Amino acid sequence: MPFHAPPRFPRGFRCASRNVGLKPSAPDLALFTSDVDATAAAIFTRNHFPGAPVIVGREAIKAGVLRAIVANSKCSNVATGEEGVEKARRMAAACATEVGTVAGHVLVSSTGVIGVPLPIEKIERGIVGMSADLQTDPLVGASGIMTTDTHPKAISLTVPGSDAVITWVAKGSGMIEPNMATMLCYIFTDASVPAVDLDRLLREAAHTTFNMLSVDTDTSTSDTCVLMANGHAGPVDLGAFAGALLEGCTRMTEILARDGEGAEHLLRVQVRNAHSDEDARTVAKAINNSPLIKTMVHGADPNVGRILMAIGKCFDCTIVPDRTDAWVNGYQVVAGGRRLPFDEAIVRTALATELVELEVSLGAGSASATAWGCDLTRGYVDENAAYFSS
Amino acid sequence: MPFHAPPRFPRGFRCASRNVGLKPSAPDLALFTSDVDATAAAIFTRNHFPGAPVIVGREAIKAGVLRAIVANSKCSNVATGEEGVEKARRMAAACATEVGTVAGHVLVSSTGVIGVPLPIEKIERGIVGMSADLQTDPLVGASGIMTTDTHPKAISLTVPGSDAVITWVAKGSGMIEPNMATMLCYIFTDASVPAVDLDRLLREAAHTTFNMLSVDTDTSTSDTCVLMANGHAGPVDLGAFAGALLEGCTRMTEILARDGEGAEHLLRVQVRNAHSDEDARTVAKAINNSPLIKTMVHGADPNVGRILMAIGKCFDCTIVPDRTDAWVNGYQVVAGGRRLPFDEAIVRTALATELVELEVSLGAGSASATAWGCDLTRGYVDENAAYFSS
Repeated sequence: MPFHAPPRFPRGFRCASRNVGLKPSAPDLALFTSDVDATAAAIFTRNHFPGAPVIVGREAIKAGVLRAIVANSKCSNVATGEEGVEKARRMAAACATEVGTVAGHVLVSSTGVIGVPLPIEKIERGIVGMSADLQTDPLVGASGIMTTDTHPKAISLTVPGSDAVITWVAKGSGMIEPNMATMLCYIFTDASVPAVDLDRLLREAAHTTFNMLSVDTDTSTSDTCVLMANGHAGPVDLGAFAGALLEGCTRMTEILARDGEGAEHLLRVQVRNAHSDEDARTVAKAINNSPLIKTMVHGADPNVGRILMAIGKCFDCTIVPDRTDAWVNGYQVVAGGRRLPFDEAIVRTALATELVELEVSLGAGSASATAWGCDLTRGYVDENAAYFSS
Repeated sequence: MPFHAPPRFPRGFRCASRNVGLKPSAPDLALFTSDVDATAAAIFTRNHFPGAPVIVGREAIKAGVLRAIVANSKCSNVATGEEGVEKARRMAAACATEVGTVAGHVLVSSTGVIGVPLPIEKIERGIVGMSADLQTDPLVGASGIMTTDTHPKAISLTVPGSDAVITWVAKGSGMIEPNMATMLCYIFTDASVPAVDLDRLLREAAHTTFNMLSVDTDTSTSDTCVLMANGHAGPVDLGAFAGALLEGCTRMTEILARDGEGAEHLLRVQVRNAHSDEDARTVAKAINNSPLIKTMVHGADPNVGRILMAIGKCFDCTIVPDRTDAWVNGYQVVAGGRRLPFDEAIVRTALATELVELEVSLGAGSASATAWGCDLTRGYVDENAAYFSS
């Protein structure tokens, strides 16, 4: 399925971003709107300390209708108590006034430092007149939600057999681990899809994509993934829509992993022949999250025995050592639980490519899973040793 | 309980180390002996791919008797199949011949790169005559088992109410996560303790010490912790012995954490008032293992909202946000799930000390746990991006 280049919005969706004084000069407030009410579904972080916007968002999404999304960066409005929730409601209300809807049809996101009071007055003042800036390039909105991302992230494609478009706008790129991430992903479509179907399809797609993405095993308090459908393109075949949704979510997952904090390599881990789906997911994540695997990839160091170490630490999975095989970018390095006498130069070369794919066959069944991540670099350490201070 | 300075062996224990050609010139083979058969217990890695020495060691320890331990570094003899197991047996036999016992009374350890064939001939040749080098300084043996450790690790203390001594000799310092680590820890005592009691006491002590230690969440395939008691000091009060054993294991856990690969800070996480022991351990480990916490400590960046993030990602634990409190080196930064308006300079100073203690009260019960770790630094990345190659 070809992605549109450049990405574009489905009919009726627009966005704007501006600086309202949360950051020195970069865009720090983004607005996304539909020109009519859209059916909507959303999934949020499972963290026990959800941000105030997540608390308010969970209420809003119950009705299955959204008209706009407003998101700020720099301050996540997390661990800020009742005042924080009140400020998130004020942010929704200010957005509703600006775009001409009710606060209950606005989804709010905030990302940035945890535990700092949200400067709501700056947002309330700053959003006034922002609807005049609305335009049709999704990259403008993507720029407005960036934190440590190195580039804005937006993609779009057409649902096969229709002229409906789906567009993804997202940010990464640290505090990212399964069950979402400090990941915001807003998905817009002009297909007409009931909210109940959106909810099911979004959960299914996230299960094998965003929930298999990890940059650092840390789960954000702010994760939000929203899907809005405004119906301008009419009904579509749900199977085709589901396929397009999965393809775009997969692509966006790779884009986010590739731009993980400090990342120089995209790491993709495929596990096959596992005893169960749960085993396949657990082993894929264990390899994907292992600091020793991530540094091995970073250094293109052919220390592939670490793959067995990472499989082996999945204590509760069915692991059959003498049926365990592994490959690095298609080159087999482990057979029957033993390291093969492979050509180190070939493995070094494989590990030096931008995409490093580790494949494992567990010989214990027929389940499979894929996880996405990145290497662990000095850049990650440097960025996160001074995130608050910088 | 005061530790002996310098550390010394209990009566009847001696050690030696030498270079047998596995490394260019550093000691790469260590020998520990008792002059008589000792009762013994051991615990090993839970990794599904245990090294050949672990497979052989599990058989040996069943009888509850050991006379010697032989350990090599540079090559871990893991993922080497039946030949690897055969080589581990040859290593035990060579040691038995040298010290005058049977192979079944020798425990073998190997650490180093996974999946490389063990040069057993070098070890068989090199160990000949090594018993003539045996002497009474445990640091000599500690030097012989070092890999990326920056210093040899040995401590000793006297069991209160007796003249029995307990001595710990260990190595770290990466691929370390609960359920042992690439951790070797040999514990020697001249107290007389039946093997069945040794086994129970060792497991109890490890549960709250070594199994709460993590440098990088990766679980080695070679972990081994052995306790040998040769009886020269006669029977001791088991309660006093257990107390001394726990104290030494705690101290050694801190020594290992402090010397984690690239570490500049010792991180100690205390969780109190948890709903259950399991919850307390899970939350303590989650904080201890979080890359974002570890980099925060590294950079002395007062981004303490990350503590809530790490608690909150323990999805299956009982977390009551508005009863959650947190302290950094005794200074409260979170109350009732909210970040306090603390003095950033004080937190920066607290995080800049060599020992950073994070305390959390969950307000959900009365269970507690402590975990030990270290900060995440460029040094960790650098060491592990080229471990195989260097």
